Amino acid sequence: MSKVQIGVVGMAVMGKNLALNIESRGYDVAIYNRTTSKMEAVIEEHPDKNFVPTRSLEEFVETLERPRRIILMVKAGAPTDKMIQNLLPLLDKEDILIDGGNTFFKETMRRQEELAESGIHFIGMGVSGGEEGALKGPSLMPGGQKEAYDLVEPILKQIAAKASKDGEPCVAYIGPNGAGHFVKMVHNGIEYGDMQLIAEAYDLMRRYVELSVDQIAHYFQEWNKGELDSFLIDITADILTKKDPQTKQPMIDVILDRAGNKGTGKWTSQSALDLGVPLPTITESVYARYISALKNERIHASQILAGPNAEKTPVEADEFVEKIRQALYFSKIMSYAQGFAQYRVASETFGWDLDYKEIAKIFRAGCIIRAQFLEKIMDAYDKNPNLDNILLDDYFIDVAKDYQKATREVAAEALTHGIPVPALTSALAYYDSYRSETLPANMIQAQRDYFGAHTYERVDNEGSYHFLWDKEIEEEA
Amino acid sequence: MSKVQIGVVGMAVMGKNLALNIESRGYDVAIYNRTTSKMEAVIEEHPDKNFVPTRSLEEFVETLERPRRIILMVKAGAPTDKMIQNLLPLLDKEDILIDGGNTFFKETMRRQEELAESGIHFIGMGVSGGEEGALKGPSLMPGGQKEAYDLVEPILKQIAAKASKDGEPCVAYIGPNGAGHFVKMVHNGIEYGDMQLIAEAYDLMRRYVELSVDQIAHYFQEWNKGELDSFLIDITADILTKKDPQTKQPMIDVILDRAGNKGTGKWTSQSALDLGVPLPTITESVYARYISALKNERIHASQILAGPNAEKTPVEADEFVEKIRQALYFSKIMSYAQGFAQYRVASETFGWDLDYKEIAKIFRAGCIIRAQFLEKIMDAYDKNPNLDNILLDDYFIDVAKDYQKATREVAAEALTHGIPVPALTSALAYYDSYRSETLPANMIQAQRDYFGAHTYERVDNEGSYHFLWDKEIEEEA
Repeated sequence: MSKVQIGVVGMAVMGKNLALNIESRGYDVAIYNRTTSKMEAVIEEHPDKNFVPTRSLEEFVETLERPRRIILMVKAGAPTDKMIQNLLPLLDKEDILIDGGNTFFKETMRRQEELAESGIHFIGMGVSGGEEGALKGPSLMPGGQKEAYDLVEPILKQIAAKASKDGEPCVAYIGPNGAGHFVKMVHNGIEYGDMQLIAEAYDLMRRYVELSVDQIAHYFQEWNKGELDSFLIDITADILTKKDPQTKQPMIDVILDRAGNKGTGKWTSQSALDLGVPLPTITESVYARYISALKNERIHASQILAGPNAEKTPVEADEFVEKIRQALYFSKIMSYAQGFAQYRVASETFGWDLDYKEIAKIFRAGCIIRAQFLEKIMDAYDKNPNLDNILLDDYFIDVAKDYQKATREVAAEALTHGIPVPALTSALAYYDSYRSETLPANMIQAQRDYFGAHTYERVDNEGSYHFLWDKEIEEEA
Repeated sequence: MSKVQIGVVGMAVMGKNLALNIESRGYDVAIYNRTTSKMEAVIEEHPDKNFVPTRSLEEFVETLERPRRIILMVKAGAPTDKMIQNLLPLLDKEDILIDGGNTFFKETMRRQEELAESGIHFIGMGVSGGEEGALKGPSLMPGGQKEAYDLVEPILKQIAAKASKDGEPCVAYIGPNGAGHFVKMVHNGIEYGDMQLIAEAYDLMRRYVELSVDQIAHYFQEWNKGELDSFLIDITADILTKKDPQTKQPMIDVILDRAGNKGTGKWTSQSALDLGVPLPTITESVYARYISALKNERIHASQILAGPNAEKTPVEADEFVEKIRQALYFSKIMSYAQGFAQYRVASETFGWDLDYKEIAKIFRAGCIIRAQFLEKIMDAYDKNPNLDNILLDDYFIDVAKDYQKATREVAAEALTHGIPVPALTSALAYYDSYRSETLPANMIQAQRDYFGAHTYERVDNEGSYHFLWDKEIEEEA
């Protein structure tokens, strides 16, 4: 029996779908699952597929041609470590382990280091697109040894999503060690931002413009034909057309407003805080989920805390919705500007040499944030690969210029009428802060020097200074 | 020679000042510093003080009566671990080590665990008030074994700041293991929020109301006589009266607008993200410092990115400044509401049984956020020690009701006119989110269920549900 070219460990839905995807490109795929019955269920479910069932890790490893290509699709954290430990004695130098799980990038960096001695290659690969993506074509973000990547690239290119514009596969070598998982993590953070901004736009249409669910669905359908064209806008429109079979109400109205999360938005924010990168819009989106989870407190507070009773100026729906659209696009740009700035600082900090254009390119299909808009980011980095911030690119300069007025108006109306739009206002504050030659941080430095002698810099001279703000203190000390 | 009751390790400015403070209460104080010359310099500088100089750790330990009381004032992190390691073989059971450094609370939790076996008591103590506080009376937040705290309480009560209202010392037993350093960490986060909100208020007076530095100083002086009465408002007023001796310009105008940070605001935000607590105002304050640090990018962007050219309605200074004052107080309340909610969730998560009233009480003097306003928080927890959120207390309900209108107006004007007020708008969004019975998080849950089968809850029934949004996907899978 000739050996097979690739194997997948872990037959939960993501692993199973990825195996099906690989098999569909003409490969035999060895599959293994710690609980054998789960692996056998896959074989039973898909008797016509070229799967090679294996009932022990030894058998699994034995089945593969060398250097072995093994994709781990197991739970991130301890289970992944355990599986690697169990595999390690069975593997040979040059074998390639690919962690396709939702792993925190620093764990991938640690594992890279730990495996370096063994001569076994390790790739941390972000896989985006959910179950459907895994099956039909995900966006793939592999990071690790370049020579190992080259050995799996042909397979990855076949299974990856293809951009509709040019048919290019949504996979590229991201960089060493944790780079792939990092890029995936921030992708997810950006996804949190997109989702919250869409939720705020929906809320404004519902509560402020007082449109029906059907009307809102219609606007999202329209938006999806223009510059907002994207997977998330598309499914939002679709969601709004669905009725609950039980109550015949719109589905959106029977779903409880308590958002869950799986931690990647949190990681992205915590990483930005570590890297010193301002990431307010994504972080506000994480906090918006947290505050949504306080449903009981909110019900209680809604009966006690006063809202505004400002009279609403009647608005013409089409006109105001267009302003909301502009505010959404403007804010989305701010959110991506923050996320891509985080890529840049991470690349410098960890020595990854990230290719920002390539990152935007592989987001164009397969993943949750896929959107036409990513072409604009590609263009920006095409013109200047070392752009400090995408806001400094001509296209984004122009959109910001044209859309800021509507964004300000929508934000001001929301604040005045008590509708929370934390992501939208944070996006606007980011823009206004970034374009401010002078910020009142001089007051903060003065205060820090006053109470903690932390020193300050001067506008007219190099160096660090300390002022004797309160002579009395200085003399006593 | 009779043994001395307490010793301080580490003669940098905080350690030295704390030693001077203790000595001033009538104690002999053994002092030690790794570099002996630094210790000798303190002796030379203060020949009349009852310091007992020690030149080795052995001598230091030998000098102290048992159980020994040792305050470590060394650099947080590895240097603290090193010092503990070096001391450990010299100590006896029941001795008390107090880490007064700026330590991350999880390190304190780890050290507690590591030292548990040895029988040596360990207290992680937050010390707030900067150099002046350490010398004249800091606010102290000790966490660790209660029986160990009891043995040092008399000294701590003497050296702590005293509240002007009732003379009560600003120290209390906070809770087990990392509780003290945690309370100190969030204190610092709150401090970041206060400072940013003050900076934004200053900026609005300067750029929007177009007042002179002297006029703004005057308003801050006035504010300090009312409900905003606090150390930070006081020093802000003072800062605005100072002139640069060199240029004769106001000091504030010669200070560069690039804010530094020592990481405690970052920690507070990262911890809130871990605990699932919405903390937008403090986090926006951290990000505001980060964005201020991008001075060169901002100068560049200011020449390229368009701002609004909305005409400004002329405002009457006194009237608009009063609105800014209300917005500042309103936002400050939101920021404390977030911080105290973080205390509650941490207390539940780590089993600390924190006394929120006691925390507010010991913040009233000595520390950077000392303010009259803390009496209101004490009152709130006095009425209900298990308050979910201080916003649900009558006093804060009323302030929010009265001040929300001005806050909305100030925020809307700032957004319209391109003045970034990220902390202020995040505070308002927090208020409006918290008092919203319904948030658009149902859209987020619908999206998550659509692309990731993450399930959702229903408004009319218990349980988790999954909807077949896109039948095509489901059938293929």
